[in-house]
Order: sequence, then C-alpha cells, then structure tokens
Amino acid sequence: MKVLITGGAGFLGARLARELLHRGHLGGENIGEIVLADLYPPPADLAADTRVRAAAGALIAQCVGWRQETFDVVFHLAAAVSAECEANFDLGMRSNLDSTRALLDALRAAGNAPRLVFASSVAVYGADPGLPLPQEICHDTLPAPQSSYGIQKFICEQLVADYTRKGFIDGRNVRLMTVVVRPGAPNGAASGFLSSIVREPVNGKPAICPVPLDMKVALASPARTIAGLIAAAEASREAIGGRIAINMPALTVSVGEMLDALEVAAGAEVRSRVRFEPDAQIARIVGGWPAVFDNTRALRLALEPDPDFLSIVRAYLTERESK
Amino acid sequence: MKVLITGGAGFLGARLARELLHRGHLGGENIGEIVLADLYPPPADLAADTRVRAAAGALIAQCVGWRQETFDVVFHLAAAVSAECEANFDLGMRSNLDSTRALLDALRAAGNAPRLVFASSVAVYGADPGLPLPQEICHDTLPAPQSSYGIQKFICEQLVADYTRKGFIDGRNVRLMTVVVRPGAPNGAASGFLSSIVREPVNGKPAICPVPLDMKVALASPARTIAGLIAAAEASREAIGGRIAINMPALTVSVGEMLDALEVAAGAEVRSRVRFEPDAQIARIVGGWPAVFDNTRALRLALEPDPDFLSIVRAYLTERESK
Repeated sequence: MKVLITGGAGFLGARLARELLHRGHLGGENIGEIVLADLYPPPADLAADTRVRAAAGALIAQCVGWRQETFDVVFHLAAAVSAECEANFDLGMRSNLDSTRALLDALRAAGNAPRLVFASSVAVYGADPGLPLPQEICHDTLPAPQSSYGIQKFICEQLVADYTRKGFIDGRNVRLMTVVVRPGAPNGAASGFLSSIVREPVNGKPAICPVPLDMKVALASPARTIAGLIAAAEASREAIGGRIAINMPALTVSVGEMLDALEVAAGAEVRSRVRFEPDAQIARIVGGWPAVFDNTRALRLALEPDPDFLSIVRAYLTERESK
Repeated sequence: MKVLITGGAGFLGARLARELLHRGHLGGENIGEIVLADLYPPPADLAADTRVRAAAGALIAQCVGWRQETFDVVFHLAAAVSAECEANFDLGMRSNLDSTRALLDALRAAGNAPRLVFASSVAVYGADPGLPLPQEICHDTLPAPQSSYGIQKFICEQLVADYTRKGFIDGRNVRLMTVVVRPGAPNGAASGFLSSIVREPVNGKPAICPVPLDMKVALASPARTIAGLIAAAEASREAIGGRIAINMPALTVSVGEMLDALEVAAGAEVRSRVRFEPDAQIARIVGGWPAVFDNTRALRLALEPDPDFLSIVRAYLTERESK
C-alpha cells in the first residue's frame, strides 16, 4: 500500500513515518511506499529508506500532480500553527484552508476514495462571548473557535466530513491535544512554551513561561499522539462512530505540576532555568483552550491518555540520550 | 446609509428591499441607497425606486469592485439551494463557499468593517451516524450537517465569526427556518414542496407531497423571516450575545397539520389537489432537519414564531389577492 503524509518532514510527520516503517504495515497491509510531502526534505534516516519518497514543495502546488496519483491512506498533518495564523491571517487561510481543500479535491479527482486522517486540534474549542466552555469537553460540545487557526481546523473538519459523506474519501477527523515534549527549536505555536519549559532547561538553556503556574492544559506525548493517528487510520467507520471529530485522549495537568515533574526527573537546578514573563496574548490563546476532556470515545479505540507528566518527561529524557 | 443585499432580486432579497424602502431607515439612519446584487435584475417596482441600484452578475466577479466600495450594512442572502448543492457539489462550493469568502474579503479590503447579516440555515443540523439529534435544538446544540448545503452554510458561519473577531466586519449569523409560503415557481430547494403544497392548490394546480403526513417541520412566514433579518442588523453585539449563530424563531407543524390549515382557509377541493408521491431523497434531507427549537435567544431580540400555520396560509391568500 502507498501512504501519503503531508507535513511529512515535520516533527509529528517524521515520527509517524518512522513508526509506520518500523511496523511495516497498516490496517493489515504491507506498506510499499511512504510519500513525505513537505516544504522541506525529510530527515536523513527517512530519506535513506528505500520505501520513502520525498515530495518537497508547497502543498497546493503538489496537489495538482496528486489528481493523477492514488494513495491508499493519507495523513494530513501539514499546517501553519496557531500564533502564525493569528499574526498573518492570509497565511493561515492559505496554508490551512486552501491547502486542505486542494488536497481533498486532488484525492477526489484521483477517484479511489482513500482513507484520510485529518489532524485537527483542541484549538477548535474556545469560550465564545455568548457561550462559556463547559467544565468538561464532551463528544457533543459545540466548538466556538477563538483563533483563526481553530476556525480553519474546524472548517476543514466540516469539509472532511462532507467529502466523506459524498464518498469522495473515507475521512476521519482527530483533534490532537498539545503535543509535549516537542524536540528541536521552538515553532510559532502559541503552545510552544509547554515544550520549551522542559526541553530548554534539560539542555542547559533558559526558558520562558508566559502563563501562570495554575493554568491547566490538555497534553499528550508524541508517542500517544502517533498511536492515535494510526488507530484512526486503522479503525472501521463503525468503530470511529460517525463523522464528528474525535478528541484524542488528554492528560490534564497544570503548568506548576509540569515543573514539579521536571524537578523530580531532572533536579531543582534544571527547574530553576525557567523564568516567568507573562504574555497576555499567549495566555489568552492557550488559556482559552479547554483542559479537561471526556475521553470515552477515544477509549473505544483503545486509546488512553498518558498516565502522568513525569512519564512524559522521562520518555523525553530517554529519547534524548539515545540520539 | 448604503445597504447591499446579495440575492437582492430573489424572493427574500426583494421582499427585504421593499420593507427597507418602506421603512426608509435602518438602525436609526436614513437609507440613501440599496444595492441589489443578483444574477438577475430586480423586479420592476424595485428597479423604479430612485434609491435602488441594480448590480447584476455573478457574485464572485462583483466582489472585485466592492473592494473599493463601502457599504454600511450588508445582507448576504445569495446562495445555491439545498437540492442543487446535493446534485452538483462543485456548484454549491462555488456559489456558497467561494462567493461568501470573496464577499468577506471584499468587505475586509474596503476597510470600514460594515455590519453583515449572513443568512444561514436550519440545514446546518442533521443526525450524524454517531450523534443523534436532540428532541429540541438549543443554542449550544452541535450542528452536524448531513448535506453539502448545510456544510457550506456552517462553514460560512465560521468565516463570518472569525472575520468579525478580527474586526474585518461586524457580522451576525442567523439561521433561517424553511420559509413558507414562497410565491412563484418552485426552486431547487429540497424543502420546496412545503410551499408548493399550499401555493399550487390555491392557484388551481396539482401539487406533489413527497413526505409522510406526520413529518414535522420548522417553518417561518416570509414576514417573520424579514423581521428577523432586520432585527439582526439593528441589534447591538451585546444583544446578539456572542458570535454563535442565532436560530430564527420556528413554528413546528406537521405536514398533515399544514394541509388541515389549507383546507380550513381554502376548502376541501383545494386540499384534494395535493397528491402523495414519496421521494426518499427529499424525505431524507428535509426529514433530517430538526423540527423543534428552543426560541429563547430569538425572543431576546423580540422575535417570535408565527402563531400557527393557518395564519401563514391566510397571509399568503391576502397577499396574492392584493396583486
């Protein structure tokens, strides 16, 4: 089978590709080829795998060619991130909305109704002036996105649902939690600090925390996030249970508890490298996302949240040492 | 002030224009000009009014010019209708989604953040395989559109909400109920029969009812619908209560009760002109829309549903005679 991953050279895309190559199969079929589409070339280890084909370039332009190419499974991860979209409205509309529509139309034109996993986001939720967020987010909570990124993700969910209903694709919308700990350099996501406050200190660098210690957030480790994407691709439509997006399992934790876990795993000196510099814009965006989720629907796909933040920090430290 | 009505030559658009010209003002300001944008020229009575300017042509093309023209209030009613969008997916995406986006971008470019009333629809609701409809639709019920038309309307609501949040426009999303009785020829709406089963018999013609007598529907008269659009344009943001779309007030009635009212108003012979020919596609689309609504939020704008269907039939008969 042939798999396409958009954003395939990014953090999640590359990690997903490695996991798929390691497994060798998806949904009971051998993986013959993985196409990694991204603005950038994939990491060297992936580029070296004979099953990997790199497709570098802007997504909208690449979609023209995909109208004549068939894929069996598509993971659509490519996106401009939240703070970028808030700062540059047109960039977000192009990178998130127009690109997704071009991809959906290419898959429709190709004609084989491939399975598509769309990576949506917890950012679809927010407190509208006329609609406060409930204590716990459930399957049927009405999203009222309060950022352009969240709006674009929610719109794309609707497109995926309708292209699926029409039989053009077999799509599944999964809403990812904030993924922590992301390796590498900070990106433009408003939630980027949730990785920085662990990653930078353990690498001997200072980090800035722009929100109060008692702010609660909904997180998932990279490993659980990848497991969720694969489970969504492998599950039957019946197991998925409708076209409404699934919230991926969430670990609810306060920023203070995150730093406590960092101290347990890496020591007080490491923790002391985190400084506090309030940023109202970031606090508004990230603080506006809900922190507590009913995980029932994800549990039906055998997906569970990370047990605690300490295990996330330790997994990051272990991976870091293995490189 | 200058008002733009898209779909301004259509049934609702022309009726709205007449009402505005009759009032002479909107939100406390005198109306100096009404631009009626439509594929077709406006009815003669409107074209003859010196305050009316006709702008005939495709909406997307007209939007280019509007980037340099400012309007104070915009009513965006232009749309391809439900059955059309289901039969021709690309037409719906272009007429409903692309056109709305072009309009929003034109208003943004014009730079005066005009008030915009977007006519959304009860068709945003539907029973997803994983999410049955509740008995009553409330303010916070999650829409799960089951038609391309409903998806496109729901997507446009999201765009209006975000363009409003960003300050590009001052938008309000109102979800219209099925408007009955529509005069003139049947259109491509799946709900068209709800007008035909009254309009055709009283005009001495046969009509076809494609659904069972016990199917319940949510209706509004043309007069109440126009009142709702104007109220949405005149209300403050605070009175509107957030960016979440408002469901317009709904009269819940069964098709059988509609025909009973027709018989009371026009006689048994008129009623006997309605034949029953089940149409599974129409029954699926219209039967999938909810019939019972919590009208609380509309009531806060002093908008009430029609008292009963008999009054709707009688109002139609009166208007018909006055022409």
